[in-house]
Amino acid sequence: MASTSPEPSTAAAAGGETDGSVQIRRLEAADHEKGFVSLLSQLSSCPDLTASEFAACFADLAALGDDHVILVAEDAAVAAAERRILATGCLFVERKFLRGGGKVGHVEDVVVDAAARGRGLGLRVVRRLVEIAKEAGCYKVILDCTPELRAYYAKCGFVEKGVQMAGSCF
Amino acid sequence: MASTSPEPSTAAAAGGETDGSVQIRRLEAADHEKGFVSLLSQLSSCPDLTASEFAACFADLAALGDDHVILVAEDAAVAAAERRILATGCLFVERKFLRGGGKVGHVEDVVVDAAARGRGLGLRVVRRLVEIAKEAGCYKVILDCTPELRAYYAKCGFVEKGVQMAGSCF
Repeated sequence: MASTSPEPSTAAAAGGETDGSVQIRRLEAADHEKGFVSLLSQLSSCPDLTASEFAACFADLAALGDDHVILVAEDAAVAAAERRILATGCLFVERKFLRGGGKVGHVEDVVVDAAARGRGLGLRVVRRLVEIAKEAGCYKVILDCTPELRAYYAKCGFVEKGVQMAGSCF
Repeated sequence: MASTSPEPSTAAAAGGETDGSVQIRRLEAADHEKGFVSLLSQLSSCPDLTASEFAACFADLAALGDDHVILVAEDAAVAAAERRILATGCLFVERKFLRGGGKVGHVEDVVVDAAARGRGLGLRVVRRLVEIAKEAGCYKVILDCTPELRAYYAKCGFVEKGVQMAGSCF
Protein backbone atom coordinates (compact mmCIF):
# COMPACT_ATOMS: atom_id res chain seq x y z
CA MET A 1 0.00 0.00 0.00
CA ALA A 2 1.45 3.27 -1.06
CA SER A 3 -0.21 5.67 1.33
CA THR A 4 -1.33 4.07 4.52
CA SER A 5 -2.55 5.35 7.86
CA PRO A 6 -0.82 8.69 7.94
CA GLU A 7 -2.83 9.67 10.98
CA PRO A 8 -5.54 8.13 13.16
CA SER A 9 -9.15 9.15 12.88
CA THR A 10 -8.70 11.68 15.66
CA ALA A 11 -6.33 13.60 13.41
CA ALA A 12 -8.82 13.57 10.58
CA ALA A 13 -11.48 14.85 12.94
CA ALA A 14 -9.23 17.62 14.17
CA GLY A 15 -8.72 18.91 10.63
CA GLY A 16 -5.04 19.59 11.09
CA GLU A 17 -3.11 22.83 10.48
CA THR A 18 -2.80 23.33 14.22
CA ASP A 19 0.94 23.13 14.69
CA GLY A 20 2.64 26.30 13.53
CA SER A 21 6.08 25.39 14.89
CA VAL A 22 6.40 22.50 12.47
CA GLN A 23 8.23 23.25 9.25
CA ILE A 24 7.41 21.40 6.03
CA ARG A 25 10.44 21.21 3.72
CA ARG A 26 12.10 18.96 1.16
CA LEU A 27 14.10 15.97 2.32
CA GLU A 28 17.80 16.68 2.81
CA ALA A 29 20.75 14.32 2.84
CA ALA A 30 21.26 15.04 6.55
CA ASP A 31 17.82 13.66 7.37
CA HIS A 32 19.33 10.20 7.61
CA GLU A 33 20.40 11.26 11.09
CA LYS A 34 16.91 12.48 11.95
CA GLY A 35 15.09 9.19 11.83
CA PHE A 36 13.70 9.38 8.28
CA VAL A 37 14.19 5.68 7.55
CA SER A 38 12.77 4.52 10.86
CA LEU A 39 9.74 6.76 10.24
CA LEU A 40 9.18 5.03 6.89
CA SER A 41 9.37 1.69 8.65
CA GLN A 42 6.11 2.63 10.39
CA LEU A 43 4.51 2.52 6.94
CA SER A 44 6.00 -0.58 5.34
CA SER A 45 9.09 -2.74 5.25
CA CYS A 46 12.04 -0.37 5.37
CA PRO A 47 15.27 -1.90 6.62
CA ASP A 48 17.77 0.56 8.00
CA LEU A 49 20.19 2.06 5.50
CA THR A 50 23.83 2.86 6.17
CA ALA A 51 24.89 6.46 5.63
CA SER A 52 26.34 5.55 2.23
CA GLU A 53 23.27 3.55 1.19
CA PHE A 54 21.06 6.46 2.19
CA ALA A 55 23.26 8.90 0.31
CA ALA A 56 23.12 6.74 -2.83
CA CYS A 57 19.34 6.45 -2.68
CA PHE A 58 19.03 10.17 -1.98
CA ALA A 59 21.20 10.98 -4.99
CA ASP A 60 19.20 8.65 -7.27
CA LEU A 61 15.98 10.39 -6.31
CA ALA A 62 17.43 13.91 -6.28
CA ALA A 63 18.53 13.32 -9.88
CA LEU A 64 14.86 13.24 -10.82
CA GLY A 65 14.62 16.90 -9.84
CA ASP A 66 11.16 18.34 -9.49
CA ASP A 67 9.65 15.13 -10.91
CA HIS A 68 10.25 13.48 -7.52
CA VAL A 69 9.68 15.50 -4.35
CA ILE A 70 9.91 14.12 -0.83
CA LEU A 71 8.62 16.45 1.87
CA VAL A 72 9.33 16.08 5.56
CA ALA A 73 7.98 17.79 8.67
CA GLU A 74 10.16 18.72 11.61
CA ASP A 75 9.55 20.81 14.70
CA ALA A 76 11.47 24.07 14.43
CA ALA A 77 10.86 24.77 18.12
CA VAL A 78 13.13 21.88 19.07
CA ALA A 79 16.89 22.42 19.29
CA ALA A 80 18.43 21.71 15.87
CA ALA A 81 20.56 18.83 17.10
CA GLU A 82 17.54 17.06 18.55
CA ARG A 83 15.09 17.43 15.68
CA ARG A 84 13.44 14.31 14.30
CA ILE A 85 11.41 13.85 11.15
CA LEU A 86 7.79 13.77 12.29
CA ALA A 87 6.04 13.15 8.98
CA THR A 88 6.78 12.61 5.33
CA GLY A 89 5.11 12.23 1.97
CA CYS A 90 6.27 11.94 -1.60
CA LEU A 91 5.11 13.23 -5.00
CA PHE A 92 6.32 11.95 -8.31
CA VAL A 93 5.25 13.35 -11.61
CA GLU A 94 4.28 10.99 -14.42
CA ARG A 95 4.42 12.27 -17.99
CA LYS A 96 1.90 10.99 -20.50
CA PHE A 97 0.82 11.22 -24.11
CA LEU A 98 -2.71 11.71 -22.81
CA ARG A 99 -4.00 15.27 -22.57
CA GLY A 100 -1.51 16.54 -25.10
CA GLY A 101 1.56 15.42 -23.18
CA GLY A 102 -0.03 15.89 -19.76
CA LYS A 103 1.33 15.23 -16.31
CA VAL A 104 -0.19 13.32 -13.40
CA GLY A 105 1.05 13.65 -9.84
CA HIS A 106 1.27 10.50 -7.70
CA VAL A 107 1.28 10.91 -3.93
CA GLU A 108 3.07 8.06 -2.18
CA ASP A 109 4.53 7.03 1.15
CA VAL A 110 2.66 9.34 3.49
CA VAL A 111 3.35 8.56 7.12
CA VAL A 112 3.27 10.44 10.43
CA ASP A 113 5.31 9.32 13.41
CA ALA A 114 3.11 7.48 15.91
CA ALA A 115 4.02 9.97 18.63
CA ALA A 116 3.11 12.98 16.44
CA ARG A 117 -0.28 11.90 15.13
CA GLY A 118 -3.34 14.00 15.74
CA ARG A 119 -1.56 17.28 14.96
CA GLY A 120 -2.58 17.49 11.30
CA LEU A 121 0.96 17.03 10.01
CA GLY A 122 -0.04 14.46 7.38
CA LEU A 123 -2.66 16.79 5.97
CA ARG A 124 -0.16 19.63 5.80
CA VAL A 125 2.30 17.44 3.93
CA VAL A 126 -0.32 16.16 1.48
CA ARG A 127 -1.76 19.61 0.83
CA ARG A 128 1.70 20.96 0.06
CA LEU A 129 2.37 18.01 -2.28
CA VAL A 130 -0.85 18.80 -4.14
CA GLU A 131 0.23 22.44 -4.43
CA ILE A 132 3.56 21.33 -5.87
CA ALA A 133 1.75 19.08 -8.36
CA LYS A 134 -0.35 22.03 -9.49
CA GLU A 135 2.72 24.22 -9.83
CA ALA A 136 4.31 21.47 -11.95
CA GLY A 137 1.33 21.56 -14.30
CA CYS A 138 -0.26 18.24 -13.35
CA TYR A 139 -3.87 17.98 -14.46
CA LYS A 140 -4.68 15.64 -11.57
CA VAL A 141 -3.14 14.06 -8.50
CA ILE A 142 -3.83 10.47 -7.48
CA LEU A 143 -3.01 8.21 -4.56
CA ASP A 144 -3.92 4.78 -3.27
CA CYS A 145 -5.04 4.14 0.28
CA THR A 146 -7.07 1.84 2.46
CA PRO A 147 -10.85 2.33 2.44
CA GLU A 148 -10.66 3.70 6.00
CA LEU A 149 -8.67 6.71 4.77
CA ARG A 150 -11.22 7.95 2.22
CA ALA A 151 -12.49 10.66 4.59
CA TYR A 152 -8.96 11.67 5.54
CA TYR A 153 -7.94 12.32 1.95
CA ALA A 154 -11.27 13.93 1.16
CA LYS A 155 -10.04 16.78 3.37
CA CYS A 156 -7.38 17.40 0.72
CA GLY A 157 -9.92 17.38 -2.12
CA PHE A 158 -9.55 13.76 -3.17
CA VAL A 159 -12.51 11.64 -4.22
CA GLU A 160 -12.69 7.89 -4.75
CA LYS A 161 -12.14 6.99 -8.39
CA GLY A 162 -11.44 3.27 -8.60
CA VAL A 163 -9.70 0.30 -7.07
CA GLN A 164 -6.01 -0.32 -6.63
CA MET A 165 -4.76 -3.71 -7.81
CA ALA A 166 -1.33 -5.05 -6.94
CA GLY A 167 0.81 -7.96 -8.00
CA SER A 168 3.89 -9.23 -6.22
CA CYS A 169 7.01 -9.73 -8.31
CA PHE A 170 8.31 -12.55 -6.10
CA MET B 1 -8.60 6.61 -14.45
CA ALA B 2 -5.26 5.24 -15.36
CA SER B 3 -6.17 1.85 -16.74
CA THR B 4 -9.68 1.64 -18.01
CA SER B 5 -11.62 -0.89 -20.01
CA PRO B 6 -8.80 -2.45 -21.96
CA GLU B 7 -11.14 -5.16 -23.23
CA PRO B 8 -14.78 -6.11 -22.80
CA SER B 9 -15.81 -8.95 -20.56
CA THR B 10 -15.82 -11.35 -23.49
CA ALA B 11 -12.09 -10.89 -23.78
CA ALA B 12 -11.58 -11.59 -20.11
CA ALA B 13 -13.64 -14.75 -20.50
CA ALA B 14 -11.61 -15.84 -23.51
CA GLY B 15 -8.39 -15.58 -21.54
CA GLY B 16 -6.39 -14.07 -24.38
CA GLU B 17 -3.07 -15.21 -25.88
CA THR B 18 -4.96 -16.35 -28.99
CA ASP B 19 -3.49 -14.10 -31.64
CA GLY B 20 -0.03 -15.22 -32.65
CA SER B 21 0.32 -12.82 -35.56
CA VAL B 22 0.25 -9.81 -33.25
CA GLN B 23 3.62 -8.51 -32.20
CA ILE B 24 4.13 -6.76 -28.85
CA ARG B 25 6.97 -4.24 -28.99
CA ARG B 26 8.08 -0.90 -27.58
CA LEU B 27 6.57 2.29 -28.93
CA GLU B 28 8.54 3.81 -31.79
CA ALA B 29 8.61 7.39 -33.07
CA ALA B 30 6.98 6.20 -36.31
CA ASP B 31 3.92 5.01 -34.42
CA HIS B 32 2.46 8.50 -34.68
CA GLU B 33 1.48 7.45 -38.21
CA LYS B 34 -0.11 4.23 -36.96
CA GLY B 35 -2.92 5.70 -34.91
CA PHE B 36 -1.27 5.61 -31.48
CA VAL B 37 -2.77 8.90 -30.32
CA SER B 38 -6.26 8.11 -31.61
CA LEU B 39 -6.06 4.76 -29.80
CA LEU B 40 -5.28 6.57 -26.53
CA SER B 41 -8.29 8.81 -27.13
CA GLN B 42 -10.45 5.71 -26.64
CA LEU B 43 -9.19 5.69 -23.03
CA SER B 44 -9.29 9.35 -22.03
CA SER B 45 -8.97 12.87 -23.35
CA CYS B 46 -6.14 12.77 -25.86
CA PRO B 47 -6.19 15.56 -28.42
CA ASP B 48 -4.33 14.84 -31.62
CA LEU B 49 -0.64 15.75 -31.66
CA THR B 50 1.23 17.14 -34.63
CA ALA B 51 4.25 15.16 -35.77
CA SER B 52 6.57 17.56 -33.96
CA GLU B 53 4.48 17.53 -30.76
CA PHE B 54 4.47 13.74 -30.84
CA ALA B 55 8.22 13.65 -31.42
CA ALA B 56 8.81 15.99 -28.49
CA CYS B 57 6.63 13.94 -26.16
CA PHE B 58 8.26 10.73 -27.39
CA ALA B 59 11.72 12.17 -26.74
CA ASP B 60 10.75 13.31 -23.21
CA LEU B 61 9.56 9.83 -22.34
CA ALA B 62 12.37 8.00 -24.13
CA ALA B 63 14.82 10.00 -22.02
CA LEU B 64 13.50 8.11 -19.00
CA GLY B 65 14.97 4.91 -20.48
CA ASP B 66 13.85 1.66 -18.93
CA ASP B 67 12.07 3.56 -16.16
CA HIS B 68 9.28 4.34 -18.63
CA VAL B 69 8.22 1.67 -21.12
CA ILE B 70 5.32 1.98 -23.54
CA LEU B 71 4.37 -1.23 -25.31
CA VAL B 72 2.19 -1.45 -28.39
CA ALA B 73 0.60 -4.33 -30.26
CA GLU B 74 0.43 -4.47 -34.03
CA ASP B 75 -0.56 -7.20 -36.45
CA ALA B 76 2.54 -8.47 -38.25
CA ALA B 77 0.34 -10.27 -40.79
CA VAL B 78 -0.83 -6.95 -42.20
CA ALA B 79 1.26 -5.19 -44.86
CA ALA B 80 3.73 -2.89 -43.10
CA ALA B 81 2.31 0.27 -44.62
CA GLU B 82 -1.16 -0.53 -43.38
CA ARG B 83 -0.40 -1.56 -39.82
CA ARG B 84 -2.22 0.18 -36.99
CA ILE B 85 -1.55 0.10 -33.27
CA LEU B 86 -4.14 -2.28 -31.84
CA ALA B 87 -3.34 -2.02 -28.14
CA THR B 88 -1.00 -0.26 -25.77
CA GLY B 89 0.02 -0.13 -22.14
CA CYS B 90 2.67 1.67 -20.14
CA LEU B 91 4.95 0.83 -17.23
CA PHE B 92 6.86 3.36 -15.23
CA VAL B 93 9.22 2.47 -12.44
CA GLU B 94 9.08 4.38 -9.18
CA ARG B 95 12.14 4.38 -6.93
CA LYS B 96 11.67 4.47 -3.18
CA PHE B 97 13.51 4.54 0.11
CA LEU B 98 11.20 1.75 1.24
CA ARG B 99 12.52 -1.80 0.97
CA GLY B 100 16.13 -0.65 0.99
CA GLY B 101 15.80 1.54 -2.08
CA GLY B 102 13.16 -0.61 -3.73
CA LYS B 103 11.30 -0.15 -6.98
CA VAL B 104 7.58 -0.32 -7.72
CA GLY B 105 6.18 -0.72 -11.21
CA HIS B 106 3.10 1.30 -12.15
CA VAL B 107 0.99 0.04 -15.05
CA GLU B 108 -0.91 2.87 -16.76
CA ASP B 109 -2.86 3.71 -19.89
CA VAL B 110 -3.88 0.23 -21.03
CA VAL B 111 -6.27 0.34 -23.96
CA VAL B 112 -7.26 -1.97 -26.81
CA ASP B 113 -8.76 -0.63 -30.03
CA ALA B 114 -12.51 -1.16 -30.03
CA ALA B 115 -12.27 -3.21 -33.24
CA ALA B 116 -9.58 -5.49 -31.79
CA ARG B 117 -11.12 -6.34 -28.42
CA GLY B 118 -11.78 -9.95 -27.47
CA ARG B 119 -8.43 -11.19 -28.82
CA GLY B 120 -6.53 -11.06 -25.54
CA LEU B 121 -4.23 -8.25 -26.67
CA GLY B 122 -4.63 -6.24 -23.48
CA LEU B 123 -3.68 -9.23 -21.36
CA ARG B 124 -0.61 -9.87 -23.51
CA VAL B 125 0.50 -6.26 -23.12
CA VAL B 126 -0.06 -6.24 -19.35
CA ARG B 127 1.68 -9.58 -18.83
CA ARG B 128 4.69 -8.35 -20.75
CA LEU B 129 4.73 -5.12 -18.72
CA VAL B 130 4.74 -7.18 -15.52
CA GLU B 131 7.65 -9.25 -16.87
CA ILE B 132 9.56 -6.05 -17.61
CA ALA B 133 8.86 -4.80 -14.10
CA LYS B 134 10.26 -8.04 -12.67
CA GLU B 135 13.33 -7.77 -14.88
CA ALA B 136 13.82 -4.20 -13.62
CA GLY B 137 13.83 -5.46 -10.03
CA CYS B 138 10.46 -4.14 -8.93
CA TYR B 139 9.17 -5.81 -5.78
CA LYS B 140 5.56 -5.22 -6.84
CA VAL B 141 3.48 -3.86 -9.68
CA ILE B 142 0.35 -1.79 -9.12
CA LEU B 143 -2.41 -0.30 -11.23
CA ASP B 144 -5.72 1.47 -10.78
CA CYS B 145 -8.88 0.40 -12.56
CA THR B 146 -12.64 0.42 -12.35
CA PRO B 147 -14.24 -2.21 -10.08
CA GLU B 148 -15.56 -4.04 -13.17
CA LEU B 149 -11.99 -4.84 -14.24
CA ARG B 150 -10.94 -6.67 -11.07
CA ALA B 151 -11.44 -10.08 -12.70
CA TYR B 152 -9.64 -9.00 -15.85
CA TYR B 153 -6.50 -7.97 -13.98
CA ALA B 154 -6.72 -11.00 -11.71
CA LYS B 155 -5.77 -12.99 -14.83
CA CYS B 156 -2.42 -11.22 -14.69
CA GLY B 157 -1.92 -12.02 -11.00
CA PHE B 158 -3.25 -8.78 -9.56
CA VAL B 159 -5.35 -8.67 -6.41
CA GLU B 160 -7.34 -5.79 -4.97
CA LYS B 161 -5.35 -3.85 -2.40
CA GLY B 162 -7.09 -0.55 -1.77
CA VAL B 163 -8.93 2.36 -3.26
CA GLN B 164 -7.72 4.94 -5.71
CA MET B 165 -8.37 8.57 -4.78
CA ALA B 166 -7.99 11.42 -7.24
CA GLY B 167 -7.99 15.19 -7.08
CA SER B 168 -8.31 17.56 -9.99
CA CYS B 169 -5.72 20.28 -10.27
CA PHE B 170 -8.12 22.70 -12.00
